[in-house]
Amino acid sequence: MAELLLADMAGITGEDIMFTSNETPSAEYRKALELGAVINLDDYSHIAFLEKTARIPGLISCRYNPGPLKEGNFIIGAPEEAKYGFTREQILDGMALLKAKGASRFALHTMAASNELNPDYHIETARILFALAAEIKEKTGIRLEFVNLGGGAGIPYRPEERRIDYDALAAGIKRAYDGIIAPAGLDPLGIRVEWGRIVTGPYGWLVARAVHRKSIYREYIGLDASMADLMRPGLYGAYHHITVPGKEQAPPAGVYDVVGSLCENNDKFAVQRPLPAIHTGEADGDLVVVHDAGAHGRAMGFNYNGKLRCGELLLRPDGSFLMIRRPETAEDYFATLNRSSLRLFQ
Amino acid sequence: MAELLLADMAGITGEDIMFTSNETPSAEYRKALELGAVINLDDYSHIAFLEKTARIPGLISCRYNPGPLKEGNFIIGAPEEAKYGFTREQILDGMALLKAKGASRFALHTMAASNELNPDYHIETARILFALAAEIKEKTGIRLEFVNLGGGAGIPYRPEERRIDYDALAAGIKRAYDGIIAPAGLDPLGIRVEWGRIVTGPYGWLVARAVHRKSIYREYIGLDASMADLMRPGLYGAYHHITVPGKEQAPPAGVYDVVGSLCENNDKFAVQRPLPAIHTGEADGDLVVVHDAGAHGRAMGFNYNGKLRCGELLLRPDGSFLMIRRPETAEDYFATLNRSSLRLFQ
Repeated sequence: MAELLLADMAGITGEDIMFTSNETPSAEYRKALELGAVINLDDYSHIAFLEKTARIPGLISCRYNPGPLKEGNFIIGAPEEAKYGFTREQILDGMALLKAKGASRFALHTMAASNELNPDYHIETARILFALAAEIKEKTGIRLEFVNLGGGAGIPYRPEERRIDYDALAAGIKRAYDGIIAPAGLDPLGIRVEWGRIVTGPYGWLVARAVHRKSIYREYIGLDASMADLMRPGLYGAYHHITVPGKEQAPPAGVYDVVGSLCENNDKFAVQRPLPAIHTGEADGDLVVVHDAGAHGRAMGFNYNGKLRCGELLLRPDGSFLMIRRPETAEDYFATLNRSSLRLFQ
Repeated sequence: MAELLLADMAGITGEDIMFTSNETPSAEYRKALELGAVINLDDYSHIAFLEKTARIPGLISCRYNPGPLKEGNFIIGAPEEAKYGFTREQILDGMALLKAKGASRFALHTMAASNELNPDYHIETARILFALAAEIKEKTGIRLEFVNLGGGAGIPYRPEERRIDYDALAAGIKRAYDGIIAPAGLDPLGIRVEWGRIVTGPYGWLVARAVHRKSIYREYIGLDASMADLMRPGLYGAYHHITVPGKEQAPPAGVYDVVGSLCENNDKFAVQRPLPAIHTGEADGDLVVVHDAGAHGRAMGFNYNGKLRCGELLLRPDGSFLMIRRPETAEDYFATLNRSSLRLFQ
């Protein structure tokens, strides 16, 4: 619901919104219909649920879970263990049922990867959806308007990684299209993707100050940021590159764990990372840049330990900054607390 | 800082507060001093930091990291890879330095486990701190006022687990005390623990409604709750027992993944769990109780996907309910957003 409201606030309207969800409450379907969004059903049972609690719109998408057809990748896991989508048989039955219930425009979606740099993986996803589009046409007579390959395009978090070769990716998808869609008489078929990570990920930095240095069984640099601001390293053991502005070319001076102040030991932005000499201090410590924090950063933060999430600054092309989100305050943190109830514990 | 403020609001005062932190900003030390809290230093370097940015109080504690002396447990990991505390040598030097700087009352802390049911583990922790207390006395002349064994007492999340045998635990700590503390001339020595999980964990339930049922490669029950309300299963793969009120004695009707509506596939409260027949429906679905959610539940929640965190109700001895924390609203979620900046994207 919050994402629908945010899209609306940002002026994203109508079919530019693709509403993908699971275990969806009816109020969210009604809001999506009100905004004219493309509704992407997660399950066969949601056809009846949508009809009963809202209505079947003219344009409807179904989310496909390829199951054992498709190998999983690291973050998203094996599709047959994933809670999302229809099986192939359910897609065929579901599309026919939706047509019988008045839908006239159809789309197909899947989301089979997360942060995947190998273009072949995404080409294979396209091939799977194209083949299913052809089968849908053959078995139900329904001609899809578009397929949505979902998200999952990776970004090079590590310096030695290279970004996706988009030319090779496009050529591979074109080959699959020419081999399947054109012969099936489905040309033109729209192709959509939801590759948000490549749009925002590399262009967000978590900028923190190196406040404390610590030497015990390992060497530590303590920042004035924490997992509250960026959970990926703690949640997935994900690598985020770290640089010290002004010291990009300086040789490593040691091997450090770069940590936040949360009480969980997985609150580490980097583990055993070679870094240049870092000056620490609450007022004059070096700034430390944790790269590629523009996706799954602030948006994924929590308030554990009563940690307050950081603000977000937008750097504009003219060099000016705009605060698009202010840092949380203690007042925000306590906003939902019934303070008068605290006296019961005194 | 938020936890200090909360302690103050709840009427917890002075030395009843033990302020343990890491990568601590000076403002938090100053607030802790203002409240008269026991400050538990995380690192040798914080002695100078505290003196420079605030002051060295009369009573001071140091946090000990036993390093390879102590085996780690599942959640907290190996102590020598953990960011917390002083080494043994640093404790000895640090206590002497703190005394030279005016401290007159001393305490020692460690936190070597999380959710550990084996009493021997906690007895061993006591033994390690007692031995260090004796060594501190011998080498620095400092007599500790108390030791704090930290947190880490586990609760039986699984039905087949048994709660800690506290009599055996107390007897084991007493034996260690009699064997080390009394002969060292340190009797009486205070013993404190921070076993919050046993106080709150078993007494909190996440109560959700079973809204959707789904049958693909597995069977799913979808709740109107998510990882936003309870992250432990997603973060650690932690087991939480699930019951359906009124069906506690009913035989299993199937094996289900019980899931929330977040877009991450680890948003599962249970994986492949035998459960009784569950009626699903937005209005009339069965309630589902996720047990032992009183610790690391709502407090550890996040807002990923724009999910709003649940409220918290307190059940009082007379059977009445009190809302101690209201559910979050979209207004809460957008409170930090600079809405006027959104037009830049239109």
